[in-house]
Amino acid sequence: MSININLDEIARMIDHTELKSSSGEKKIKDLCEEALTFNFFSVCLNPCFVKLARRLLDGSAVAVCSVVGFPLGANLSRIKAEEARIAVGEGAAEIDMVMNIGALREKQFNLVADDIAAVVAASQPALVKVILETCYLTDEEIVKACQLAVEAGARFVKTSTGFGAFGAFPDHVRLMRATVGPDIGVKASGGIKNFKDVWRLLEAGANRFGTSAGVTIIEGASLFRFAPDAWLEPEIPCHICPVRHATLAKLPKAVFAYYKKKCLGCPHRDKYNRFND
Amino acid sequence: MSININLDEIARMIDHTELKSSSGEKKIKDLCEEALTFNFFSVCLNPCFVKLARRLLDGSAVAVCSVVGFPLGANLSRIKAEEARIAVGEGAAEIDMVMNIGALREKQFNLVADDIAAVVAASQPALVKVILETCYLTDEEIVKACQLAVEAGARFVKTSTGFGAFGAFPDHVRLMRATVGPDIGVKASGGIKNFKDVWRLLEAGANRFGTSAGVTIIEGASLFRFAPDAWLEPEIPCHICPVRHATLAKLPKAVFAYYKKKCLGCPHRDKYNRFND
Repeated sequence: MSININLDEIARMIDHTELKSSSGEKKIKDLCEEALTFNFFSVCLNPCFVKLARRLLDGSAVAVCSVVGFPLGANLSRIKAEEARIAVGEGAAEIDMVMNIGALREKQFNLVADDIAAVVAASQPALVKVILETCYLTDEEIVKACQLAVEAGARFVKTSTGFGAFGAFPDHVRLMRATVGPDIGVKASGGIKNFKDVWRLLEAGANRFGTSAGVTIIEGASLFRFAPDAWLEPEIPCHICPVRHATLAKLPKAVFAYYKKKCLGCPHRDKYNRFND
Repeated sequence: MSININLDEIARMIDHTELKSSSGEKKIKDLCEEALTFNFFSVCLNPCFVKLARRLLDGSAVAVCSVVGFPLGANLSRIKAEEARIAVGEGAAEIDMVMNIGALREKQFNLVADDIAAVVAASQPALVKVILETCYLTDEEIVKACQLAVEAGARFVKTSTGFGAFGAFPDHVRLMRATVGPDIGVKASGGIKNFKDVWRLLEAGANRFGTSAGVTIIEGASLFRFAPDAWLEPEIPCHICPVRHATLAKLPKAVFAYYKKKCLGCPHRDKYNRFND
């Protein structure tokens, strides 16, 4: 297997992200400077920073991406829509909205679809990504959420907020890509710390990455080619399986039970099983 | 020292809380039923559930409390205000808003004050609590945030969202109470799991508690009187000190450095210091 890493291409797949509530304008200025230096695709930030970032990035190829209904998704649709409309008006080219996760889990599919459609309509002409928060969903729910998002006009589905129980896993990205097909984007986000994480998720089908470790990733990618074989060694499957993080303290009971059942039926059971004594 | 515990009084200080993004209407129905059974002061929930909760609690003494700009506080003021206005229109009697934490940390005090005032104005006649997210602030910043909140018309200051690095600590509650005086409420929230936690924070000056463990707390309180002495034993001070959670992974660098300095100058240093080798 040969690897072709083009650093520019990697950089253009990164939404350089700063969403911590404790971060102020200083952090956003640093974020924008780094995005300009590395030519990242966008900066992804909270709504109160859209105007500042748009000004700092003026004349560059770096886009501004604002989150909406973030990170819980449990706001009213009209608030999400208004938040998106203002962000786009202030210069956001992309909107990362959190779907109504509780409604999806209770099969209120019309509510979920209408919620997404309201944000899509309010965001024109900006592109909308729908954050599923995969850590709280079963595989069946991930598939359904992807379908609803695409039908409602989203152009991307996205794994995680970074504030949930865990972030992006290759299994979930693979499932999302298989569901949405080649024409809709899949953004992996949450817990992406280095180039190996990116590589794994890229192989699984992601074409955008939300991470605050963009600089580390590009630096890692530049070292990659010196020892490509080391990176290609097969990994212990359970290390990159979301079930690794399945605990009742972190997950809804139903999702925990789902993971446990899946894990106990997994072909890797005898060697690594998470639920073995 | 004698203790008088009135279970009804404790119950009437509890905002029975469910804010997880994975929770849907079923969880909210359970929450409301428990609130009715135990006569909690309110149910505290995400904005998309206000209407449902108001209907379920109709005719009871249990209030509905909606969060706003939650949990990051980094939304535009007009979105926070509109979210509050709608929640109050749908029946919320109390609004728990998150202040703009990043702006406070960068001393943009006018922005912080205007943000709170906008929500207070939009929430009339409902009462507004301002969530400081104390885990990301120094003591000086906590004092300043309390002053700004009170000047802007808030009726409560509140420690935490439950989504930050850590929740309510007696030291912070004591500082908040000393700053706002007796006429403004202090709500402790985040990590309150049992009656001992409540007791400790009550002694420190809190008069409202945000917790999802309301039922456990009332049950614990009813057992308290059988062995009151055991509960009154002095605790190891570092066990109930926020510095216990100070790590660079969780806190802004400046806050970590502040805690470290404070800890190294603490009278308990020789016995328990968190930063001893």
